[in-house]
Parts: sequence; C-alpha cells; structure tokens
Amino acid sequence: MGKRYTIALDAMGGDHGPDVVVPAAFGALAESTDVDLVLVGNEPAIDAALRLVSSASDPRISILHASQSVEMDDSPSQVLRSKQDSSMRVAIDLVRDGKADACVSAGNTGALMAMARFVLKTLPGIDRPAIISELPTAKGHTHVLDLGANVESTSRHLFEFAVMGSELVSAVDDIERPKVGLLNVGQEGIKGNERVKEAARLLASSNLHYIGFVEGDDIYAGTVDVVVCDGFVGNVALKSSEGVARMISGLMREEFGRSLSSRVAGLLARPVLRRLAGRMDPRSYNGASFVGLRGIVIKSHGRADVVAFKRAIMEAVAEIRKNVPERISERIASVLLEKEAV
Amino acid sequence: MGKRYTIALDAMGGDHGPDVVVPAAFGALAESTDVDLVLVGNEPAIDAALRLVSSASDPRISILHASQSVEMDDSPSQVLRSKQDSSMRVAIDLVRDGKADACVSAGNTGALMAMARFVLKTLPGIDRPAIISELPTAKGHTHVLDLGANVESTSRHLFEFAVMGSELVSAVDDIERPKVGLLNVGQEGIKGNERVKEAARLLASSNLHYIGFVEGDDIYAGTVDVVVCDGFVGNVALKSSEGVARMISGLMREEFGRSLSSRVAGLLARPVLRRLAGRMDPRSYNGASFVGLRGIVIKSHGRADVVAFKRAIMEAVAEIRKNVPERISERIASVLLEKEAV
Repeated sequence: MGKRYTIALDAMGGDHGPDVVVPAAFGALAESTDVDLVLVGNEPAIDAALRLVSSASDPRISILHASQSVEMDDSPSQVLRSKQDSSMRVAIDLVRDGKADACVSAGNTGALMAMARFVLKTLPGIDRPAIISELPTAKGHTHVLDLGANVESTSRHLFEFAVMGSELVSAVDDIERPKVGLLNVGQEGIKGNERVKEAARLLASSNLHYIGFVEGDDIYAGTVDVVVCDGFVGNVALKSSEGVARMISGLMREEFGRSLSSRVAGLLARPVLRRLAGRMDPRSYNGASFVGLRGIVIKSHGRADVVAFKRAIMEAVAEIRKNVPERISERIASVLLEKEAV
Repeated sequence: MGKRYTIALDAMGGDHGPDVVVPAAFGALAESTDVDLVLVGNEPAIDAALRLVSSASDPRISILHASQSVEMDDSPSQVLRSKQDSSMRVAIDLVRDGKADACVSAGNTGALMAMARFVLKTLPGIDRPAIISELPTAKGHTHVLDLGANVESTSRHLFEFAVMGSELVSAVDDIERPKVGLLNVGQEGIKGNERVKEAARLLASSNLHYIGFVEGDDIYAGTVDVVVCDGFVGNVALKSSEGVARMISGLMREEFGRSLSSRVAGLLARPVLRRLAGRMDPRSYNGASFVGLRGIVIKSHGRADVVAFKRAIMEAVAEIRKNVPERISERIASVLLEKEAV
C-alpha cells in the first residue's frame, strides 16, 4: 500500500461553510485516491451537509467536532485568545500534531495567518511568512507574493519572499529555476524606494534566477514566473485587477444588452465569451498558500463555491506531494550558508 | 475682449514628438477660442510638422526654439544639471515667468516632475507634489493620487494628497465635497500599516468628505471621487489594471479568432465591443496633473496619439479656467489654520 495523506478542512470557514466544503471534499477525493479528509467543525452541521451529498458514509472522510467558528470580523488577537476550539484552530492543530499533512480554510485571512503562525511557527531562517497565489497571464500563469500577510516589508523580507516563491513554483510547476522579478514603479535601477533597491541588490547576488525589476503590467504579461512585492502592494494590485475585470464584464453586459441587435450579437458571441471567462476563471486559481510556515496552510477565497474550494484542496494535495515546506526550508538554509561563506 | 490663456507645449516629448503634438494643438485650438499655444522645441522639426497640418500659419500658435530634448532614459538629476535648454525645461520656465498659464509634456515623468518642482516650487504648506489622474469606473470616473511622484509617503503626505485631490476634483468635476477614500488592504480600522492608519486619523478629523478606507477594487467600482495612496502603490495599481485590461483584450482577440463561427460572432459583436472599448478608452483619460506646484503641469502618456494628447491639452485648459493651483493653495492654508486653531 502506498503512502496516504491527510488534509484537515475547516468546514465552517467562508461564506457557505459545510454546504461548499463538503461537496468540494467529495470532488477532491474522487480525483486523489491517496488522500483522506478530516472535516473540522460543528458535527451536526457537517453531518447534515454530508447526508445531502451521499447516503453512504465514505471511510476516507472523518468528522472532528469543534465548538467554535471564527467570524469574518474577528480580529486576529481575539481569535488567538478566545477561539481555541474553533474549526480553524483545530484544523491547524492537526497539522502541528502530525495528524494532518495540510489544512485548508476559507475563513478570515488575518485570523488564519495569526493562528497558523502562532501554532505552526515559521521555518528556520524565515522571519515573515507570506501569501502566494497563482494568477492568470496572457501566456499561462504566474505566481505573486506577498498578497497581504505583511503590510510593511523590509528588503530582507522581500528577499525571503523571493526564495520561498521561487522554491514553491519550482516544486508545483516543475520549473528548475523559475524567473523571479521584483515589482517596482519602473525597470531602471534608479527607480523605486530604498527597500526595493536593497532587495534588488540581495537578489542579484543570490543564486536565484532573478531577472530584475518588473512593473504592474508585467504580472499579467507573464514576464516572470514569480513576482515579488510587499504585501500591501500585492494586495492592492490583486484587488485593483479584480476590480478592472469586474468593471469590464459589467460594461460588456450593459453594452450587449443595449439593443436588439446587440442582444443577438451577444447570443452568438456567448460560446466565445464563455471560453474567455473560462481562461480567467478565478475559481481555477483559488487557493493561496501561506509559505514560510512549518506546515502547509491553504487559504481559499471566502466566497469560493464547490469548484473553487475543491481547487484549494487540490493545491494542498500538490504541495504535500512536493514537500513544499521542506524544500523551502532546505533552500533558505543553503542561501544562508552561501551568505555566511561570502 | 475676454481673457486669453496661453499653454506651453513640450513639442519634443513622448514617442512621436511634433508629429503628435502639432496636430493635437490644432485640435485643441478648434475647441477653445480663448487659448493660445506655444510649441517649444526644435524649430525646423516643429515647422515641418506644422506645414504637414496646415499651409497657412495660425496666429494663435507660436514656436519657441529649444536646442535640447529630454530623453526617456535621462535621469532627473542629469536633466536638472545639463538640460537647461530642453523643450521640457523651457516650457516649464514659461509657466514660472508668467508667459504661459500651464504646460503639457509627454516626456520622461521623473525628469518632468524634478524640473517642475525645481523651477516652479511647491505651494506653501505642501511638502510633496503628487500625480493625479482620472480613471474610468463602472459608474463614470474617479481620480487617483499619487500615481508615482513619491515612492515613500508619510501619513502627512497622504493627508496632503487628499486635500489636493479633493480640491482638484471639486474644481474640474464641479462637486462641492468630493468623497475621499484612503486605499488600504481592508476596510476595517485595524487593517493596514501605521502610515495609513495615521493618515486615516488626520483625514477623519479634517473637514474633507472622508469616507474611510477603500480597497483596490473600489477604484473601478467608483466608490469614491478621490482615491488617495502612496505613489508606489498607486503606480502598481494603475499598471496592474492596464495589464489586466490588455490581457483580457488579447485573450478576447484570440478567442474570437479561434474558428469560423467565432470569427462571424466577432464580426457581429464588433459594434458592441467598439462601444465597450470607447467607454474605457485610455485616450479619454490621458493627461495626469502634477498637483501641489505653483503652476499647472500636465503629463501626457509617452505613447499618446493625437486624440490622447489633445485630451491632455484640454485638461490644462480646464485647470487654468478653474484656477486649480490657487484653489489648492487656499484650501491647504485653511486646513493648516484649522489645525492650528485646534
């Protein structure tokens, strides 16, 4: 019998809780025969959702009751203090105790990061964990970090993000030396603030495949495999992009509804526009990773539906199989040794 | 005879120089009978471009020769030191000397800001000028600043940006109290870095119509009339947005070209897609203002075509008519007095 993996799912997180998490769990199991899932949360609620999907119980799914839930407006400090039996916390505890190989939650990002950091701790040599996610590009996809774990990053932090991002992409995308770019307001060396300039110096003298500064539009041009930035900047870039895409799709709906002939054109264009939407479907990119921790924690979008949440579970599966935290740990150790040797 | 206004155009700036600036100048004159234009730059080159557009000379257009041009890769410090007879510098000098009421350039942004600041100086009470531009939203448009003049802003700078942005929008959009939002990574008060939190406190106790934190997607949702942010963040948000829009339009072209039926659908959808493109046409938003200076300086996109450059000239016309620098100066003085009174 081959090795089996266990993933803990925070069944109460996100806008839909078990109604999305449970069917997504079945979807993920159908694709990965070597995975078991622990649904953590309110047992009766999970039970009810399970019965809706399947009359027979699946031996690969177990329930672990947790008496509390983390709410979207709970502050990280509140949650750390008073939500020790929340579904989110219990799911993370399972990872710490070696009873799960990863956990996935669609809950409050700040709370999840605070708990994950408190419970799992950061990897040796990593000062700040970061949030990394895949994004669509004109050519395929890229990865961007940090997307909001840190609202104030030093050049050293940016350097750590680059090491972690490069290693994660190398693992999950099977690229030996991913191209790394540092997000800046221009490509010339004189552009940017001191933190970015100093991070560029650190990266240029490292053994990463660092190609230099990139700008906001390079993210979607697919210029590099990994885009590195401060969490404040990354979060704003991501949300602005979502905003533009939403505006375009709203205006398109308006324009295609403006007259009879426009509506007919819209009807005929529908298959094309569906393919287009499919290529940028945010559900295909759902599941951001918290990198830099001693364990795998995947954050799903709070509004994720079944397809999207299943994608987040599959991200966890991929990272477990590729041993991402260990690879990052080894990489950062080698980078630190290299520095000491200089 | 009514009052006449003069605008100095840097005829050598941007990718196309006089070939775009000259026809755009004629376009602007056709719309504004009370405006005269000074084309600054290489006289033979401007002359040649003028003759291409019109055989007769227009008394409202004059040429002022300048022996140098600022290149896109010139650094601000180089330009300050050694390009004192550049078209850009001479155009700004005309504003300083009261011979022009505004200047417009499509040249190197960093050089233009450095020169404008050096020659014109900032308004009393303003520590840092900023770059503000109109952007399309789902509902109409909004204004965002800073878009890249400052890569490191204190809370005090963010506050100044808010005052300047609010006053400019009040003037050009005729809104008595524009809604101002501060760009952050979340809407809750606990989110963000210290600079943003402190700026929020300053704004909340001011007499601006401050509505609180907004996120990246609020820019394009049109939640507020003025979005305030650090220049690094604003620049990345703007360029990321441009990148997404470009990716979508590229993928759309690909999908509409995929098969015969898709091409037919594309043909039928063309008028609709043209209307859509028209509503987001970056040319209709060309012309960013440098606010906080003792004079009006408008920066056109370097790749601007005739339509876009004309829009930048019209932005200058609007700001001259509304006396924007004076209004900002009065507003900042009243804000400072108010603070002292507390």
